[in-house]
Amino acid sequence: MNDIAKVIEKIEPLNSDAMREAQARQNVLTKPTGSLGFLEELSIRVAGIKGEAVPPPFNNKVVITMAGDHGVTEDGVSAYPKDVTPQMIYNFIAGGAGINVLARHVGARVVIVDMGVAAEFEPNPALVVKKIGFGTKNMAKEPAMTIDEAIKSIKAGIEVFESEYAKGVDIVALGDMGIGNTTPSSAITAVITGRPPEEVTGRGTGVDDEGLLNKIRLIKQAISLNNPDPSDPIDVLSKVGGFEIGGIAGAMLAAASHRVPIVVDGFISGTGALIAAELAPQSRDYMIAGHSSVEKGHRAIIEHLNLRPVLDLDLRLGEGTGAALSMGIVEAACKILCEMATFEEAGVSNREE
Amino acid sequence: MNDIAKVIEKIEPLNSDAMREAQARQNVLTKPTGSLGFLEELSIRVAGIKGEAVPPPFNNKVVITMAGDHGVTEDGVSAYPKDVTPQMIYNFIAGGAGINVLARHVGARVVIVDMGVAAEFEPNPALVVKKIGFGTKNMAKEPAMTIDEAIKSIKAGIEVFESEYAKGVDIVALGDMGIGNTTPSSAITAVITGRPPEEVTGRGTGVDDEGLLNKIRLIKQAISLNNPDPSDPIDVLSKVGGFEIGGIAGAMLAAASHRVPIVVDGFISGTGALIAAELAPQSRDYMIAGHSSVEKGHRAIIEHLNLRPVLDLDLRLGEGTGAALSMGIVEAACKILCEMATFEEAGVSNREE
Repeated sequence: MNDIAKVIEKIEPLNSDAMREAQARQNVLTKPTGSLGFLEELSIRVAGIKGEAVPPPFNNKVVITMAGDHGVTEDGVSAYPKDVTPQMIYNFIAGGAGINVLARHVGARVVIVDMGVAAEFEPNPALVVKKIGFGTKNMAKEPAMTIDEAIKSIKAGIEVFESEYAKGVDIVALGDMGIGNTTPSSAITAVITGRPPEEVTGRGTGVDDEGLLNKIRLIKQAISLNNPDPSDPIDVLSKVGGFEIGGIAGAMLAAASHRVPIVVDGFISGTGALIAAELAPQSRDYMIAGHSSVEKGHRAIIEHLNLRPVLDLDLRLGEGTGAALSMGIVEAACKILCEMATFEEAGVSNREE
Repeated sequence: MNDIAKVIEKIEPLNSDAMREAQARQNVLTKPTGSLGFLEELSIRVAGIKGEAVPPPFNNKVVITMAGDHGVTEDGVSAYPKDVTPQMIYNFIAGGAGINVLARHVGARVVIVDMGVAAEFEPNPALVVKKIGFGTKNMAKEPAMTIDEAIKSIKAGIEVFESEYAKGVDIVALGDMGIGNTTPSSAITAVITGRPPEEVTGRGTGVDDEGLLNKIRLIKQAISLNNPDPSDPIDVLSKVGGFEIGGIAGAMLAAASHRVPIVVDGFISGTGALIAAELAPQSRDYMIAGHSSVEKGHRAIIEHLNLRPVLDLDLRLGEGTGAALSMGIVEAACKILCEMATFEEAGVSNREE
């Protein structure tokens, strides 16, 4: 826990001077005051995160996609077989998945991390291996992982981010891959936000009505059996979580500690954000909600973290796809702040006051 | 009118075979069925527009920003002086405006058109001059323009698009610049959608409560004085419209006739879309609503055209900014369709049926 505490200690508040200056600059750019709406807000937040009123360009955009398997899939919580997790890892490596396409589109590099897939991979330079285990245990029967594994998964996430940060990261998006992982995500969301599982459990990749009822039943069983302590995010992660969720939380904490804006993807990535924000409430200010997911529990997370999603496109793929796409919007927002001419520079009359 | 009719005649229905094939391809890409939501729909629509199930890359993205002045500004409908229209033209030419920044961000070229600014410009290769007049007349006192001018403005828009199309246009966004132009836009929207002016009139660049009441009063006066025929879009354009609005409508018709996807910006561009769709209902299928504007009347347009906005970021700048930004999303949607691996290609198991 000590290493995690050290990272958390390094997370500072946003720089309010930079935010004030950025707001003042937005007000003299050649456009009606406030007319670029949420783009202006986003740019001001990035200024506060970076501590610079005119933040430097995003030369290093990074998407980190954390993968893991889930013991609870043995009880049929997903429309897809568990083998899909390792198969998709190969798809990521080959560049054929949704996240590859969208990351290329916004000019981001993709980092794929095996946080705990239930398969061995040949060593591959395109795959970071931080395997905590071969999938979690079935949380409907026992804790998904030990406390030690939960801590290890967060630490591994920190290490992944630190290693990427050494190469350069100006903005980071976090994504997930893991057949069955909406089930632990719903469980974590229910426990941390205090909502009933029914309210935060959706169809994931597409289970039918019966599958949804089974999923809710298993989540309830997992919570009542393991009795996670809502005030202890490590306990929650260990009992009803996943290795990739811990990894996402850890990477977010490390990003916040380095003043790097964090674009949160959808439901699973949002669950990682919940864990991170419970461990370090100040990390929330570094988070930007990439999009509003179709997955039911995502709204509870957005409300709990008090974030406004950038996009609302009915996405529910995960992998970091919504975050990658919205990263382009956040970048555009910052370019507005940095590149637009002021009224004075352009010789344009400001409003008649 | 004859040239306009010829363009309209060339507008064909979307290619339903291409759309079916695109849908079938979306269903076998390595993601849960439908999990990329609206992105999938957008890509399928582009397939139908282009008539190709796997549309070629957008190598030529173009933003056309049409500018014009409005006689009604003499009655104080805007928070900004009329001089801002020509001043902003120079800002566009110098590359310092919002549209320049966002078009660069998505890799689009910007075409600035003087459709009727109340100022002379030195010849400049970066400015297309199609000046129909030095601003419209004050529609609160007389028709904004003659029927002949209305037809000329639409024809000029067609010419602008044709000239760009000759250089290459794979997708086009239409935007506007013109101090006072939310006033004719509200008038057109009220007449065509049949809603009362109060319901479709907002604050534009930012008038106060008194200014808003004055604006609504002038719009009502313009409509009752000129009595535009709701079933005749040319009549509506001439009596309560603007030169840039006619230009936008014309460019949209030409784009549809060449099977080029049209990204509509906000309120003013939406008003041009209304005129285009009234002239040629089949042109609507070629339109993508770039974003949901803050300007009150925009919602009425979106509902009337039955479109779903791509972005919702509280924008109200115009110039084509929201359309340019969403053009990047539409492009991403098409890349998903074209570049993602199928289950078979990637060796990934599809869902258990």
